Amino acid sequence: MIKLAIDAMGGDFAPEQIVKGINIAIKKHSDLELVLYGKPEEIKKYLTLNDRITIVDSPRVIDMGEHNPISEVRNNRDSSLVMAFRAVREKLVDGVVTAGPTQCVIAAAHVHIGRIKGMKRCALCPTLPTFKEGGTLMLDVGANTDIKPEHIAQYTQYANFYAQEVKGIKNPKIYLLNIGTEEGKGRELEQQTYELLKRLPINFCGNVESKEILTTDADIIVTDGFTGNVAMKAFEGTAKGMGALLKKEIKSSLGGMIGYLFMRKNLKRFQDHFSADKVGGATLFGVDGTVIKAHGSSNADAFSNAITLAYKAVKGDVVNKMKEFIENHPFEEVSNG
Amino acid sequence: MIKLAIDAMGGDFAPEQIVKGINIAIKKHSDLELVLYGKPEEIKKYLTLNDRITIVDSPRVIDMGEHNPISEVRNNRDSSLVMAFRAVREKLVDGVVTAGPTQCVIAAAHVHIGRIKGMKRCALCPTLPTFKEGGTLMLDVGANTDIKPEHIAQYTQYANFYAQEVKGIKNPKIYLLNIGTEEGKGRELEQQTYELLKRLPINFCGNVESKEILTTDADIIVTDGFTGNVAMKAFEGTAKGMGALLKKEIKSSLGGMIGYLFMRKNLKRFQDHFSADKVGGATLFGVDGTVIKAHGSSNADAFSNAITLAYKAVKGDVVNKMKEFIENHPFEEVSNG
Repeated sequence: MIKLAIDAMGGDFAPEQIVKGINIAIKKHSDLELVLYGKPEEIKKYLTLNDRITIVDSPRVIDMGEHNPISEVRNNRDSSLVMAFRAVREKLVDGVVTAGPTQCVIAAAHVHIGRIKGMKRCALCPTLPTFKEGGTLMLDVGANTDIKPEHIAQYTQYANFYAQEVKGIKNPKIYLLNIGTEEGKGRELEQQTYELLKRLPINFCGNVESKEILTTDADIIVTDGFTGNVAMKAFEGTAKGMGALLKKEIKSSLGGMIGYLFMRKNLKRFQDHFSADKVGGATLFGVDGTVIKAHGSSNADAFSNAITLAYKAVKGDVVNKMKEFIENHPFEEVSNG
Repeated sequence: MIKLAIDAMGGDFAPEQIVKGINIAIKKHSDLELVLYGKPEEIKKYLTLNDRITIVDSPRVIDMGEHNPISEVRNNRDSSLVMAFRAVREKLVDGVVTAGPTQCVIAAAHVHIGRIKGMKRCALCPTLPTFKEGGTLMLDVGANTDIKPEHIAQYTQYANFYAQEVKGIKNPKIYLLNIGTEEGKGRELEQQTYELLKRLPINFCGNVESKEILTTDADIIVTDGFTGNVAMKAFEGTAKGMGALLKKEIKSSLGGMIGYLFMRKNLKRFQDHFSADKVGGATLFGVDGTVIKAHGSSNADAFSNAITLAYKAVKGDVVNKMKEFIENHPFEEVSNG
C-alpha cells in the first residue's frame, strides 16, 4: 500500500475541488490509501466514501496571503497543512500533497519534515508544458536563491532519479540553463556547475538558453532558484499573455469571429497545451519524504494528477534512491563561492 | 547636423538590407549625416546617392561566428565594425549603428570607444515588444553577468535619461525584476539594489515579476545581465514558439484552414505585435558615445529604425546628460558584495 497525507483545505477551490480530485485518484490506484486533513463536515460534503480514505480533524487553515511563512507554519500546528506534513515526519504516511501557498510548503517541509541527511538544499521542481512529450522538468524555481554549484549538482542527481521513476524516462537528457550554449559561458556559478555536472553519473548534455525553453529536447533543465523562478514565470506569463492577445485579436472583427467557428477545435488544442491541469504540480526535492505542491488554482483533475505524481514517486522509491546515492557520494565543498 | 557612423557590412542581410535601411533613414531626417564603413563597390549597388552620405573603404568584415570577441575586435582594425567604432572615439561622428554580433559590439565599445568617465559598467538595453505602447526597455540583458547593486543603479539612471529623450516619456516608470513584488524579496543583489533605486531621482515603482513581462506598465525594467538575458530570451523564445504552435494547429485541419481565411488579418496583427522590426535595436549604455546594436537579422525597415534610435539619442544629448549626472553623483561603493 502507498499511503499519502492530503491537505484537503489548501488551494483556491478547496475543499470542493481537492476532495473531488481525491475521489478520482482513489479510483485510479487500487493500492493507494489517503489520509485527509481538514474540516470533516466540509470534506464529507464532496467525498465519495471509500474504506481506503480516512479523515483527521484539523481545525485551522493556513492563510493564503501569509507574509512570514516560517512563523506561519511554526505557529499553526493545528492547520491542515502542518498536520499533513507532520504525518510524513512521524512516518504515518510516505508523502504529502497540498495546493497551499508555495512559500508555506517550502517552510513546512523544512520545519516539520526536514531534509534528507547529507542533502544540503531543497529544490522546487515543476514540469513546464514544453513541446517535448510529457513536458520538461525545471529546477530549482524558487526554494533557494543564493546557492553553490555543489547544491545544484546534488539536486540534479535527485531530478535524474525522479525523471526515471516518475516519468519513466530511461536516460533523462539534462541541461544547464545558461546565456550561451558553449562551455565556459555564464557566471562563475554556471562555469563551476558545468564542471560538476560533467562528472555525475547522468546524461548531461551541456548548456541550454532560455530562448529554447519551449522547443528544447531537455527532460530536465537545472539552474539556481532565482534564475529558475524568473525563467519559468517569463515562460508562463508570455504564454498566458499571448493567449489573451490572440483572443482579443480574434474578437476584434466579424471575420475573426467567423474564422473562430471553423477553427475552434484547433484553438482549443492550442490552449490546452499550456493548461497546468495535466501536469498536476511541482515536487519539492530534498526533504525526507515525498512532497507535492499542486497549483493553488487546482481543479479536481489537476489535483488528482498531483496525487498520482506523489503515488509514483513513492512507488519508485525516489527518496531512498537519493539517500543511497548520498551515502556513496557524500557532499563535498568544491567551490570557493 | 547629427553625424552617425554606420557599419554597412554587419548583419545577416548586409550590405543590401543595411544600405536600403540607410536610404530610408536619410530621407526621414533632414539634419542627419551618415558615414558608411564597408566595401564601396558592394554598398553602391544599393545606395541612393545623397550628399549627406559618405563611404569609407573598410576591407574586412567581422566574422559572425566569432569565438573570442575581444581578440577579434583588437586584431581587425580594418573591419567595417571597428572602423565605425573608432570614428566615435575620434569624435568624427556622434554615434554608431551596427547589426554585427552582440559580443563584438560590446567588446568593440570597450576596446575602441571606452566608457564614460566614472561609469563603472555598460549595459545592453533592448525594447521588449510588451503590450505597453512603445514597448518596455529592459537592461542589462548580457553586457555584464557579475555585477553590484551600484552598477545597476548607475545604468538605471542612464535608462531614465534615454527613455525621456529617445522615447519621449516624461516620468518613466522603472521597476526592478524580482521573484516577488514585496520589498525585501530576492537575493542580496535585489535587496540592496532596491534600496539604492529608492534614493535615485527617478520614478521607481518597486519590484516586478517576470510573469508580468508582457502586461506590465513598466517603461523600464532593470536587472543584472545574466537574469536579464534569461528573462528576455524566455520571453522571445516563448512568443516565437507559440506562434509556430498556433500555425501548426491551424494547418492541421480543413476547418482550421478555412477559419484562417476569415481571420488572417487578425492573425497578422497578432504576429506583427511581436515583430522585432519596429523596435530597431538595442542601445549600449555607458560608453562615451551613442552605440546602437540592430538585430542581426535586420531588414531595411528594422535598420532604418535603428538609425532613428541613434539619431534621437544624439539629438536628446543622452550621453552628456549622463556625464553631468555622474559629475554631480560620483560612483560610491556601498555594497559589501
